[in-house]
Amino acid sequence: MPFPRLLRVGTFLLAASATSPLTFPWSRSNENSKSSLAVAPKLREQGDWNHNWDFDAAIPTSPPTQYRRLKLVILVRHGQYDTKAAAPEQKVLTELGWKQAIATGKRLRELGYHIDCIVHSDMIRARQTTAGILSELDQVHLSETGILEVATRPPTLTDHEVVTQCSPLVSKSCPLLESSLMAEGPPPVEPEPSPPSRTKRLESLCPAELSDRINTQNRIGSSFHHHIHRRPVSITGERAFRGGPTGGRPFEVVVFVGHANVFRYWICRALQIPPEAWLRISLPHGSITELLVDITPPSECTVTALRIGDDGHIPVELQSR
Amino acid sequence: MPFPRLLRVGTFLLAASATSPLTFPWSRSNENSKSSLAVAPKLREQGDWNHNWDFDAAIPTSPPTQYRRLKLVILVRHGQYDTKAAAPEQKVLTELGWKQAIATGKRLRELGYHIDCIVHSDMIRARQTTAGILSELDQVHLSETGILEVATRPPTLTDHEVVTQCSPLVSKSCPLLESSLMAEGPPPVEPEPSPPSRTKRLESLCPAELSDRINTQNRIGSSFHHHIHRRPVSITGERAFRGGPTGGRPFEVVVFVGHANVFRYWICRALQIPPEAWLRISLPHGSITELLVDITPPSECTVTALRIGDDGHIPVELQSR
Repeated sequence: MPFPRLLRVGTFLLAASATSPLTFPWSRSNENSKSSLAVAPKLREQGDWNHNWDFDAAIPTSPPTQYRRLKLVILVRHGQYDTKAAAPEQKVLTELGWKQAIATGKRLRELGYHIDCIVHSDMIRARQTTAGILSELDQVHLSETGILEVATRPPTLTDHEVVTQCSPLVSKSCPLLESSLMAEGPPPVEPEPSPPSRTKRLESLCPAELSDRINTQNRIGSSFHHHIHRRPVSITGERAFRGGPTGGRPFEVVVFVGHANVFRYWICRALQIPPEAWLRISLPHGSITELLVDITPPSECTVTALRIGDDGHIPVELQSR
Repeated sequence: MPFPRLLRVGTFLLAASATSPLTFPWSRSNENSKSSLAVAPKLREQGDWNHNWDFDAAIPTSPPTQYRRLKLVILVRHGQYDTKAAAPEQKVLTELGWKQAIATGKRLRELGYHIDCIVHSDMIRARQTTAGILSELDQVHLSETGILEVATRPPTLTDHEVVTQCSPLVSKSCPLLESSLMAEGPPPVEPEPSPPSRTKRLESLCPAELSDRINTQNRIGSSFHHHIHRRPVSITGERAFRGGPTGGRPFEVVVFVGHANVFRYWICRALQIPPEAWLRISLPHGSITELLVDITPPSECTVTALRIGDDGHIPVELQSR
């Protein structure tokens, strides 16, 4: 019965104009029909795009090119891990988690990106996921990783000694690429809607715990500004300004390996949607999110999500959240 | 040089509190540290969740269960098609587009969903994509499709006669499931940011073209309210209220096969983010977007995106946008 439903909903549409700025040509003259496309001022304010979104007007200029210059930001969530372990360093990937990490590495290899930089959180599950990914990537295609020793083949999945050893931790020669800012924690805005269990847990915190929590929130707020911006990977933006590996579309690729809550907040901020919406997005283990960042100075600087929480490369029997 | 960058950005953070409601424990006493988690009123307004988001307070009640009742809404974008064809009915899937549709059907089969309903746009590329999907789905797992005759094997990809014939069009016995509301067109809000080419094209429209355009925008606004809501597929919500096929988590599954602009607008509306953001999301051909809709009356009714624009199931050489 679509018609009665439409009629009924139609009544609400008129009442709900804040989210449904429908216009009606028959109630307007031809003279002002073009202006009827304009949406209400309040909406424009809410949804307006700030091209200088990272507050970074000093990005390097470059010789003109026929292409826009782009930075592809890839967010990979770590694999499944042992949530019940007591100590932080014991919260290692499960066997399933390792398989997910390796499947994601395989996909990144197949996609054929020239990866300019990998940045991973300093938590063990993110470091191990990075190792799993690197075991599948051809080193030739990596400009810079900060990781000197990685397994050349997938680790033996039943041997926990082996899988722990091939953590990126074995090399910290380029510490900037291991980011403690990216460690998991609560984003600096409460989710809306907030699950009752979350609200209850918050109310039970003592002042010291609450202070710690606020520090973590501040740190995660900083992580966005520190890692997600229009600056090219290199100071002069060599790759983005020179052209891609095939001489075509000039872009740089940065892979971040980290955590669901941090990445959900980053996605909202990068897309300039209300950050309270972060919990409305779910990211599966080993999933790939791609944000295409236009870094062409100084004009239109857009950010487009090419995919969010894509784990279609992981066989169904290995999927988890 | 992360530190100078952090410092510099930190200054802007304070100025940009509308999107960065960071709080500072050292500037607050213990007494009010809990309330420091509250975000600014303006932000709460922007990001507030409306549990009665489809304005439908009359959804059916049911006996209590240990599970929340869920509806999984799957949005599949059609495959690549011949954009240069003159007449609408000639804008058929390319061979690549057929391969994408079949890959998506295969993935939906592998995911093992019990699909309760498939709704497809009435444009040829969406009808053909639906046929491609159905050629891979086991009929046993389909409650209702509205499509009586489909190819039992993938169509011969080089034979245009064959691929046109296996369009769902051959059966219209259940016309509600072929939706003309879902046909492609401009969403009822202009995208923000708006590409200059789009603005220029809009300005060149004559009043008659503009009036047509506004009618289309109205139609696409209606399509959201008509198709995306908390009502279960069946009048009494049999599956959602009885429990899933395995007797576990009770949910219903509806698959929509349609178009990028319509779906991008739907995603924004379903997630209650500003609809002007629709062009910030890109959906690849054959991609799968999953929205998990809580239909438990009458309490918390959330919508969560499980994945957006996921085409990881499509081999890299067959991907396109």
